[in-house]
Amino acid sequence: MSNTNHKVLRIGLAGLGTVGQGFIKLLKLNNDTIALKSERSIILSAVSAQNKMKERSVSLEPYRWEEDPVKLATSHDIDVFIELIGGTDGIALEAVKAALNAGKDVITANKAMLAHHGFELSQLAESQNLCIRFEAAVVGGVPVIKALSEGLAGNKLNRICGVMNGTCNYILTRMENQRLSYKSVFNEAKKLGYLEADPNLDVGGIDAGHKLSLLSSIAFGTQVDFNSMEIEGIDRITIEDIEQASDMGYRIKLLGLSQLTDDGLEQRTQPCLVPRYSPLGQIEGATNLVALEGNFAGKIYLQGPGAGEGPTASAVMSDVIDLARGIRIPTFGQKVATQKKVSAINSASEAPYYLRFELIDKPGILAKIASSLGSANISINRMRQYGHSSEVAPVIMLTHKTTPTHINRAINEIELSGVSTIKPLAIRIEED
Amino acid sequence: MSNTNHKVLRIGLAGLGTVGQGFIKLLKLNNDTIALKSERSIILSAVSAQNKMKERSVSLEPYRWEEDPVKLATSHDIDVFIELIGGTDGIALEAVKAALNAGKDVITANKAMLAHHGFELSQLAESQNLCIRFEAAVVGGVPVIKALSEGLAGNKLNRICGVMNGTCNYILTRMENQRLSYKSVFNEAKKLGYLEADPNLDVGGIDAGHKLSLLSSIAFGTQVDFNSMEIEGIDRITIEDIEQASDMGYRIKLLGLSQLTDDGLEQRTQPCLVPRYSPLGQIEGATNLVALEGNFAGKIYLQGPGAGEGPTASAVMSDVIDLARGIRIPTFGQKVATQKKVSAINSASEAPYYLRFELIDKPGILAKIASSLGSANISINRMRQYGHSSEVAPVIMLTHKTTPTHINRAINEIELSGVSTIKPLAIRIEED
Repeated sequence: MSNTNHKVLRIGLAGLGTVGQGFIKLLKLNNDTIALKSERSIILSAVSAQNKMKERSVSLEPYRWEEDPVKLATSHDIDVFIELIGGTDGIALEAVKAALNAGKDVITANKAMLAHHGFELSQLAESQNLCIRFEAAVVGGVPVIKALSEGLAGNKLNRICGVMNGTCNYILTRMENQRLSYKSVFNEAKKLGYLEADPNLDVGGIDAGHKLSLLSSIAFGTQVDFNSMEIEGIDRITIEDIEQASDMGYRIKLLGLSQLTDDGLEQRTQPCLVPRYSPLGQIEGATNLVALEGNFAGKIYLQGPGAGEGPTASAVMSDVIDLARGIRIPTFGQKVATQKKVSAINSASEAPYYLRFELIDKPGILAKIASSLGSANISINRMRQYGHSSEVAPVIMLTHKTTPTHINRAINEIELSGVSTIKPLAIRIEED
Repeated sequence: MSNTNHKVLRIGLAGLGTVGQGFIKLLKLNNDTIALKSERSIILSAVSAQNKMKERSVSLEPYRWEEDPVKLATSHDIDVFIELIGGTDGIALEAVKAALNAGKDVITANKAMLAHHGFELSQLAESQNLCIRFEAAVVGGVPVIKALSEGLAGNKLNRICGVMNGTCNYILTRMENQRLSYKSVFNEAKKLGYLEADPNLDVGGIDAGHKLSLLSSIAFGTQVDFNSMEIEGIDRITIEDIEQASDMGYRIKLLGLSQLTDDGLEQRTQPCLVPRYSPLGQIEGATNLVALEGNFAGKIYLQGPGAGEGPTASAVMSDVIDLARGIRIPTFGQKVATQKKVSAINSASEAPYYLRFELIDKPGILAKIASSLGSANISINRMRQYGHSSEVAPVIMLTHKTTPTHINRAINEIELSGVSTIKPLAIRIEED
């Protein structure tokens, strides 16, 4: 049971990387403000990390050191366990379960863990009258989780859409601004330490997908379902795609989108073309933006730094202060038993598409393409075949509105026919 | 005392205009969602308005009618009093005080009342362990109050800046998009019913100022202080100003800005030039945007419809659900006794300015202007004297960074000298 009646809220913190150190700095630097808002003393009782002796930007002297994060999670001298270790399974998950079983509220930034295990963890928390809070898991210090689960609590949500991975957005905007290839920017980012140990988590769209699955659960009152998500990363995007899109008034963004229809829940993370001057089109560098659409509130946009020491620590602290103030809400905004079980369905709604082919430069090839598109009921809005010196002719098309099913049918047929030297690239155009 | 332990939360609603009717619609339409999130039954027990027989878009049949809002506010069959009457003083204030004295929590959308009486009302609420909630008072359904008082609770706030009056923004964007005069758009808006009974509340910058004063109190932990605010409306802005600004890469917006410095609290609401492609520069029509800057979170932007039946009802409902969930926070985010008493100071920070003169077309006049600017230590970045057929020469200047004090000194001197046929117009340029 949590100890909301005591004057002191005691924290155990596992994970002392960037965010963990940021949290410690924040607790010290803004201590007066935090105490005023919480109306309680917030004490960091104990810490744990993989490597005690690692060089850090904060001193760990004031805190009890605990070698084992699972032992920390169940310590008698903490009320709240903060998990900043990371990782889908493994020690983070084990420690969080241990904390809940030992009666501790949990705060985490671990979107991967929650995307895969969030449902069972929320059941465990609820059975113990405990809270799992995760503002820091999505869009840094921008209070998106709070906006969705509290600020828009009176709404039925229509749709969520966002740019939620700063690495992908950084890469795409740098490619565009510097006119560099994907490979150059990727290697540059790697050298600068901007990429995770497993970069595919970011550029493969998986991280953005994790975040989207959590938002969807809250927004639509459905069980967290990451496994059914359609995911496509940014590694096929070329500088030519970016420049062609730009020429036509669009920018390319990795978007996470979800909506609940009568047929089921659509969730997808994929590169999309968006109008240059739309809110999503304006997002530069590592900034994130989430658009939430409620049936009474209308369309709300929340934007800010998506990651980093300061922003993520700020989000963790807002969860701490919420708990200190006695704010106790179910993990995904409503009791587990009330969550809807829905079918996961592939996106079916219509949109225009950007298509890129690299065609064998022979007579009749374009006719083949046109024919495949025609039989898939896709009509062409714009087309551009631009000059080339090789035997391969790059062709760009913008279609009129069509469905993913039709596009996939056309693409598969074209790929099988062998007229395109690459698998045709199809990027959905999201106009609003 | 509030009744957080009961299964039912009973509401009394005074004020059945647009927002009141919107709230009733929302309560009916989204009833299932609201019940799931609140984990309680939300019942509208009684309603009150000035005119019972007025034609409305909702039926009042299901609710007990109370003629007198003060009696409603103290009724035994309500736990929470929702004040949607409006107005700084008068019956709204009287009813809210009565509700608090009778042990009811209060929800309001009344920014004018809170701007003038918020401090004393928060003292009264606190003395009774009651809550006053006002998400609906600022930026419609966008949860700005919640973002500031909870989501950014761990931060020290550096600055707040926003476009917070939809009427002003609608007028300015319509002037620009349709190339119309201020007077034309104003009259058009009046005819369409877009303006308040007292339009000066909007176009005079007062409404935006009310909202800013509430945000400042929460952000900086200071007592609400509307009276010290520097306020300037949009009624001097001409289509020529808008077009000149546009030509130079700027748009004109009514901004509310506040920051707490070592010398005191700066609060101002005034038209400003902002870069066209900045977040503030992108805001069209009646959309609002607020930028919050925290020392750990960084710069957060929240954007959405600033007013209207749906958005404002959504905000009122989020306050209802918060109370139903047992979320109880001091009115302005911290205990009244802990709020800082600070001096209100005029803005002192430097910025470039846009200046417009209408000069008597004689030799030596421009020299006089340049001389006045020079003795006020203002240097000119750009200047434009454009062709004219009358005896008056319109001159536009952009200055380098200077302070409001210096600008005011130069303007006063120029005005006194009689060389400009109008009081020179100075619009601050806010670059970020």
